[in-house]
Amino acid sequence: MSEPFNTWQSRLEALRSNKIFEGVVIAIIVVSALVIGAKTYEETSRFEQWLLYLDVGVTVFFLVEILIRMAAERDLRSFFKRGWNVFDFVIVTASLIPMDDSEMVLLARLLRIFRVLRLVSMIPELQMLLVALVKSIPRMGYVALLMFIIFYIYAAFGSFLFAEVDEFLWGNIATAMLTLFRIATFEDWTDVMYATQEVYAWSWIYYLTFIFLTAFIFLNMMIGIVLDVMQKESDKQALENGEGDTAELHNMHDDIRRLQTQLDRMEASLSASNTHEPPKGIDK
Amino acid sequence: MSEPFNTWQSRLEALRSNKIFEGVVIAIIVVSALVIGAKTYEETSRFEQWLLYLDVGVTVFFLVEILIRMAAERDLRSFFKRGWNVFDFVIVTASLIPMDDSEMVLLARLLRIFRVLRLVSMIPELQMLLVALVKSIPRMGYVALLMFIIFYIYAAFGSFLFAEVDEFLWGNIATAMLTLFRIATFEDWTDVMYATQEVYAWSWIYYLTFIFLTAFIFLNMMIGIVLDVMQKESDKQALENGEGDTAELHNMHDDIRRLQTQLDRMEASLSASNTHEPPKGIDK
Amino acid sequence: MSEPFNTWQSRLEALRSNKIFEGVVIAIIVVSALVIGAKTYEETSRFEQWLLYLDVGVTVFFLVEILIRMAAERDLRSFFKRGWNVFDFVIVTASLIPMDDSEMVLLARLLRIFRVLRLVSMIPELQMLLVALVKSIPRMGYVALLMFIIFYIYAAFGSFLFAEVDEFLWGNIATAMLTLFRIATFEDWTDVMYATQEVYAWSWIYYLTFIFLTAFIFLNMMIGIVLDVMQKESDKQALENGEGDTAELHNMHDDIRRLQTQLDRMEASLSASNTHEPPKGIDK
Amino acid sequence: MSEPFNTWQSRLEALRSNKIFEGVVIAIIVVSALVIGAKTYEETSRFEQWLLYLDVGVTVFFLVEILIRMAAERDLRSFFKRGWNVFDFVIVTASLIPMDDSEMVLLARLLRIFRVLRLVSMIPELQMLLVALVKSIPRMGYVALLMFIIFYIYAAFGSFLFAEVDEFLWGNIATAMLTLFRIATFEDWTDVMYATQEVYAWSWIYYLTFIFLTAFIFLNMMIGIVLDVMQKESDKQALENGEGDTAELHNMHDDIRRLQTQLDRMEASLSASNTHEPPKGIDK
Repeated sequence: MSEPFNTWQSRLEALRSNKIFEGVVIAIIVVSALVIGAKTYEETSRFEQWLLYLDVGVTVFFLVEILIRMAAERDLRSFFKRGWNVFDFVIVTASLIPMDDSEMVLLARLLRIFRVLRLVSMIPELQMLLVALVKSIPRMGYVALLMFIIFYIYAAFGSFLFAEVDEFLWGNIATAMLTLFRIATFEDWTDVMYATQEVYAWSWIYYLTFIFLTAFIFLNMMIGIVLDVMQKESDKQALENGEGDTAELHNMHDDIRRLQTQLDRMEASLSASNTHEPPKGIDK
Repeated sequence: MSEPFNTWQSRLEALRSNKIFEGVVIAIIVVSALVIGAKTYEETSRFEQWLLYLDVGVTVFFLVEILIRMAAERDLRSFFKRGWNVFDFVIVTASLIPMDDSEMVLLARLLRIFRVLRLVSMIPELQMLLVALVKSIPRMGYVALLMFIIFYIYAAFGSFLFAEVDEFLWGNIATAMLTLFRIATFEDWTDVMYATQEVYAWSWIYYLTFIFLTAFIFLNMMIGIVLDVMQKESDKQALENGEGDTAELHNMHDDIRRLQTQLDRMEASLSASNTHEPPKGIDK
Repeated sequence: MSEPFNTWQSRLEALRSNKIFEGVVIAIIVVSALVIGAKTYEETSRFEQWLLYLDVGVTVFFLVEILIRMAAERDLRSFFKRGWNVFDFVIVTASLIPMDDSEMVLLARLLRIFRVLRLVSMIPELQMLLVALVKSIPRMGYVALLMFIIFYIYAAFGSFLFAEVDEFLWGNIATAMLTLFRIATFEDWTDVMYATQEVYAWSWIYYLTFIFLTAFIFLNMMIGIVLDVMQKESDKQALENGEGDTAELHNMHDDIRRLQTQLDRMEASLSASNTHEPPKGIDK
Repeated sequence: MSEPFNTWQSRLEALRSNKIFEGVVIAIIVVSALVIGAKTYEETSRFEQWLLYLDVGVTVFFLVEILIRMAAERDLRSFFKRGWNVFDFVIVTASLIPMDDSEMVLLARLLRIFRVLRLVSMIPELQMLLVALVKSIPRMGYVALLMFIIFYIYAAFGSFLFAEVDEFLWGNIATAMLTLFRIATFEDWTDVMYATQEVYAWSWIYYLTFIFLTAFIFLNMMIGIVLDVMQKESDKQALENGEGDTAELHNMHDDIRRLQTQLDRMEASLSASNTHEPPKGIDK
């Protein structure tokens, strides 16, 4: 690597970790989000040309910014090693896709919305929050599977029995599952029940058992997660406390053992001085 | 037991605990569930013959699978000792009931839906989850009874007072309880209240006290369960910690007691050498 | 007190604490509740005479039962000292009020519903639950007051501003508070908001701040109560643990102090034997 | 400062901290709140003159009360140092603004509602509650930001795609965010979904992912806050426990070290008496 290149790179590195530069990037992200939001107002149609220029400007800025960050790294591989860099790279390149076709315009617009997510990769606290959220997904996996099985069984029952009552709500197993999700959120569930109760008077059992089951599992899931997180918390704390009481205990025990060695020595010397014989049978 | 039979049985045992065989069983369960789901779509009526064949195939497979598992056990009693085996056996035999009558067809179909539950007995994590759910039922028993008493009292009040206002909602104590459950889920409860308020202007007191009572008891139940589970958790942890600090404390105390014995001996010998008399009155 | 009276009383005491007698009382309470429930069905009007006889029977039984329990006590004062006895006495006497007037019939009926509450005083687990609920009320007092202040301020605002929009919902401060309670339970709150937004476009701020405030305070209240209960739990546990590690520590410390006394004595005797002089300046 | 002035001031100080005076202030606040509430009833229009007098009376009382509290302080700066004094001062002065203009009358009325908040500054328990609420705001900051980003992205999507379906709900990004908040509270969300599903059949994915995301983040936020509060609680407790076991451990260790010093001395003296030589190489 040549000297001038190194200087140039270290300058980019300095720029990248510059607080003001970071602030500018965050500001541009916010502006880009506001531009997308502004486009949803009809009154902004006369500023469309200006918004387009602004949009191009933001796109170019993001491109330059990510190129600077790539150049600041030793090599491309180390750039892509960090997950958040890949995250940013995908968001920036996705908005570079040309949009000639009128249908594609909408897609291109939608892809640009995800630029707002770059806020998450820029602010460390949001990064931590997202990592914590992602980490808590596996804990919920099997509960979600159990929930799905219960939804599936009830949906099969529901579509077999209630399909004639209301084709729209219970027509097939997929719509029945959507209807059950609606019931799980308590959203106008009595309307659904009153309709089926006219044909099947006992159908309140179907709804009440379903609500109790889902509420019950949800409750257990919530408590499970709370306990899981607290378990980790208390493990961590036990480790830290180890530096406190447990360490003190160990040190104390060592001191007591040293006392014993000394006492052994003294007893030996004492017995030697008394009988002028080597001590016999000192118990450890 | 003859040798060849033993070899045959141990082969079945090997098959039963084979990971690939387990995977195949799970796959067949999922296929069976999808077949049931597919039948709820009208478009599938032309594939009905195929679905029937598939259904028979799944039924036969499940029968063979449970026979293999039974044969792999030493005797039938030990097979039925495990709760999950009984669970599987009931599900499989229930779908073997012949279905000539047209009315029975529906019932047979419904029974087959429960095959999806075999997923729970196949996947250990789901087993654990279900066991945990079942175990948490007694904790809720008395709270549920208290809740029921409150519902009953309010329902009796409601059906005495509001039956003339709305026969459909408050006609008798059973429908009144259903209406109260609806109110407890906040589902269009104001519509119910506004209707009765026209006749009994003070009836908002009835609804508000009911909502506060049920929300209050629900809150307490939730906290009660959380604390119950955590109590068990911390008991378990205390036991584990016992291997840490408490054990260290005990060992240390033993060492100190040994020091004392040694010191007693030394003092005795010292006093003997000084006065050539046996030591008197050494306090323990 | 005469001998025969004492025998008679101790027999009543035995009866009162008899498990079978308790079971009969609980059964009668349940029957009494079912009778009240049955009366809400129109079809039961032809059994009305029988239900009336049953009702009178239950009333007489409860009267006899409470008289037995009163007679089983040494004196009336000790009977009324126990809160649950007062509770039972009020319920039983309330259903003895004569009911000539047709209007009073309804009231007498309603009072009899409360007999179901006697289940709570009969089953110790329900007693404990109710006591726990009552004890947790003061913890919520100030939070409820804060909540009330917020409701009052928002209701005053609401009835000043939105009364012209919808007299029924915002007519005066009382109905406005009821409407706000409805909004706090998320019950059709958007209908209320959309109506006022047509006149005051900014009124979404009113609703959103209200929802955030009440949800926020509710959340804090819930967490506060959980922590309060857990604090007590961990205090109790600390006390129990005290019998474990802390006691061991104290015993050990005592042993060490005894070692020291012994060592002091030995040093003194050693120094005496060496110099035939009393030891001077032994540091404690 | 002259003597008479000091006496006068100390009298005011005594008045300010007088329990009866505090009670009177609280009573006046409650009366003032009731007056505001009473004005929302139409029937009170004939008492309007009386209510006006009462209102002026309350205003004057509050003015006098705050002047007394100001005079009771050494100087104005120390009065304004306490946040609650500033809080009271702003509320009292706000209601002194003259109200000639008819439009201003409403504003003046609204400002007077905030007088109820003076209850918070008068009752220490409510003060503590409010301080706790304010302290818990920063903990929620970043979660709220993440929530806002998700709402923004979904709102942008929603207003691009569904604006033609329902201009009222999805017209621009602001109304779309309001609609999404409505969906997050489960308020008639299926009506919104069914409308868009007629045009975009896949739109249930949009609603379900949104509901799962927001519920998930809300759940995590709640658990996060619970853990945060409990962490502080257990830190506090660890400190208090320090006075228990940890202190005992330290004292014990000190005693053991003293034993060692004594033993060293004894060994030295012993070896001296035996060999009449200075002891060599005593290991610490």
